[in-house]
Amino acid sequence: MAGPLHFNIDHRLPGANARTGTVTTPHGSFSTPAFMPVGTKGTVKGLLPHVIASTGSEIILNNAYHLLLRPGDELVARRGGMHEFMGWTGPILTDSGGYQAFSMSDVNRIDDDGVTFKSIIDGSAIHLGPERAMEVQNNLGADIIMAFDDCPPSVDGVHGTGREDHARRLEEAVGRTTDWMARCVESHARPDDQALFGIIQGGTDLELRSRSLEEITRFDLPGYAIGGVAVGEEPGLIHSVVRAVAPQLPEDRPRYLMGVGYERDIVAAVEAGIDMFDCVLPTRNGRSASAFTRSGRMNLRNARFREDDLPIEPGCPCLACSGDQPLSGDRQRGFSRAYLRHLFQAEEMLGPILVSVHNIQHFQSLMLDIRRAIRDDAWPSLFRDWPVLEDPAQKG
Amino acid sequence: MAGPLHFNIDHRLPGANARTGTVTTPHGSFSTPAFMPVGTKGTVKGLLPHVIASTGSEIILNNAYHLLLRPGDELVARRGGMHEFMGWTGPILTDSGGYQAFSMSDVNRIDDDGVTFKSIIDGSAIHLGPERAMEVQNNLGADIIMAFDDCPPSVDGVHGTGREDHARRLEEAVGRTTDWMARCVESHARPDDQALFGIIQGGTDLELRSRSLEEITRFDLPGYAIGGVAVGEEPGLIHSVVRAVAPQLPEDRPRYLMGVGYERDIVAAVEAGIDMFDCVLPTRNGRSASAFTRSGRMNLRNARFREDDLPIEPGCPCLACSGDQPLSGDRQRGFSRAYLRHLFQAEEMLGPILVSVHNIQHFQSLMLDIRRAIRDDAWPSLFRDWPVLEDPAQKG
Repeated sequence: MAGPLHFNIDHRLPGANARTGTVTTPHGSFSTPAFMPVGTKGTVKGLLPHVIASTGSEIILNNAYHLLLRPGDELVARRGGMHEFMGWTGPILTDSGGYQAFSMSDVNRIDDDGVTFKSIIDGSAIHLGPERAMEVQNNLGADIIMAFDDCPPSVDGVHGTGREDHARRLEEAVGRTTDWMARCVESHARPDDQALFGIIQGGTDLELRSRSLEEITRFDLPGYAIGGVAVGEEPGLIHSVVRAVAPQLPEDRPRYLMGVGYERDIVAAVEAGIDMFDCVLPTRNGRSASAFTRSGRMNLRNARFREDDLPIEPGCPCLACSGDQPLSGDRQRGFSRAYLRHLFQAEEMLGPILVSVHNIQHFQSLMLDIRRAIRDDAWPSLFRDWPVLEDPAQKG
Repeated sequence: MAGPLHFNIDHRLPGANARTGTVTTPHGSFSTPAFMPVGTKGTVKGLLPHVIASTGSEIILNNAYHLLLRPGDELVARRGGMHEFMGWTGPILTDSGGYQAFSMSDVNRIDDDGVTFKSIIDGSAIHLGPERAMEVQNNLGADIIMAFDDCPPSVDGVHGTGREDHARRLEEAVGRTTDWMARCVESHARPDDQALFGIIQGGTDLELRSRSLEEITRFDLPGYAIGGVAVGEEPGLIHSVVRAVAPQLPEDRPRYLMGVGYERDIVAAVEAGIDMFDCVLPTRNGRSASAFTRSGRMNLRNARFREDDLPIEPGCPCLACSGDQPLSGDRQRGFSRAYLRHLFQAEEMLGPILVSVHNIQHFQSLMLDIRRAIRDDAWPSLFRDWPVLEDPAQKG
């Protein structure tokens, strides 16, 4: 299709749905499968843009929900959009704000027109529906924007009659998501420089997923996403939904699995044909001293790291593990676990900063290895180099 | 003198005491007059080492007091010292811990053997005297270490009989500082790779200052400092002490004014012959959204910056004002006041980070201009380029 986004598939893994590609946007291109760090309020917490870029991140995500509340999408538009505002020169994706509005807010009303909730900033009533979600994202100016979808909570924890109510609620959500898709397409004011992605809903009900897929892919869109997963359900259910839906999405459009996830979830989704991921795990865990490594997670507050002179993960190219002064010559040892532990004990900002950088690098290194494994037809090598993919104990 | 530090004076301002020079240490050299950012607990809060270096900072300060409490000086020694521990490859100076022990602690006892105070970490009783202060600093491994001095509070706010008590206390401090100087020289275990600076005490009493100067300079030391200023007294009193003491310090050794200060205090002290400064103002103010500019301070939380697209100070070369991606091509606009205000409103770490970087750059730009004004015999140009030096309302 003509429009603001071009997707080129470079390689396919024989006998599987996994593929590598390049997505080109008005603010540059990114390689797929891609991992997008989350910059919720217009900043990936604690990281300067050049530090984000140092991890190999090529595209980041901002949350429309948070930005419409503060500083306000119109203020951002007057600043020239999010790229200008936050100083990130590469591609940006915004979500529609729907997920946060439904799940994080004091919701007053949900109906066919959208959701009304209380602002966490000043308690005022905020309405978000398909038209307003498009307006907000047009104002924020991201390269990729998301349809406003109805995203009910996961089925887990719902029992008995609740379970039937939940089934009805899921079905309602699928219908609404389709109606709202049409209204999003209709009201999207910048189709020439912002690519609108549709979202498949349906929870863990594969029939509903199938219906949603059929309805949403009737819209000729530059990309499609699977929404409503990683909202509390078991990892096994995520995998079965992704395996059922992803291969049915249009082959020549980027496929985005929203809000996922751990390393094994990502690898399983790539196998099913997914091209794009976002997740708060690297930064959220980073702030609480939890570091990702190829063999599992490590809590740097642990007393066993008191005198540990190794970096988080020897051989990791991130500036936490390899040092932050590439031009300074011989000393390239990175920051030790002992130093990181000290920073967390002393409640120093540099602790969250360094572990966040490492964790984002961890996911970018995984994506790099995934792309290489596809290009080289060497999928099993991934499982050799990433023990965390094999060990269920390291998971979740 | 032979030893770990070499000081070369490059230029002198005709008819004044101001000079430029170069101090060479085992971890590289720095130009004087020099400003040292403060990395209290082994990190300049929120700033990666390469970000500190980007401001032109060549030497930083660590606080022995905080580091001996956590993570402990012996642990740091086992890690290879502070350079290795925190990843700062350039020169480091540590203070002795005395000032914090006297002023910040729950003090149990002060006597001729030092000070006993309660640990802020676990409430345990900690003793710090000249021998232990040397041991701590030998363990931390800085290039320049400071004598353990007796540093009583300033005279301000002391009246009547209290004033006489204070005079006796000041006199006692001068005597003790001299006694402790001898014990520091005696117990300093690494004189070949750590330069021990002496400290002149005497409060605002110029006769006592003169006595302290005479006694301390009898020790042949690689550098000398003026202590016990900027501890609460009026700025005018700082200036008169510095003007009286600095020119009497050995000409061929670096002179360090501890804990000072605002721009005008620094310029006045350079005129009196001071070569080195440290101060927490740039980082402490940065964390509370207070930015230094050549024409005064600016609080970035202020509503008037809501839609202000200018950087903090147009023309400033710091990465907050000029952008953090020097290789990214045409977009080099820096981060706007509107964005910085948003970051502080949203309580995002990146606000304190960016304003701290700018504020350190502000002081390094001042030092650069001071050195240029001395080299070019163009002292008055400083006052033209730095309006803040002229305007008393912008002060303090």
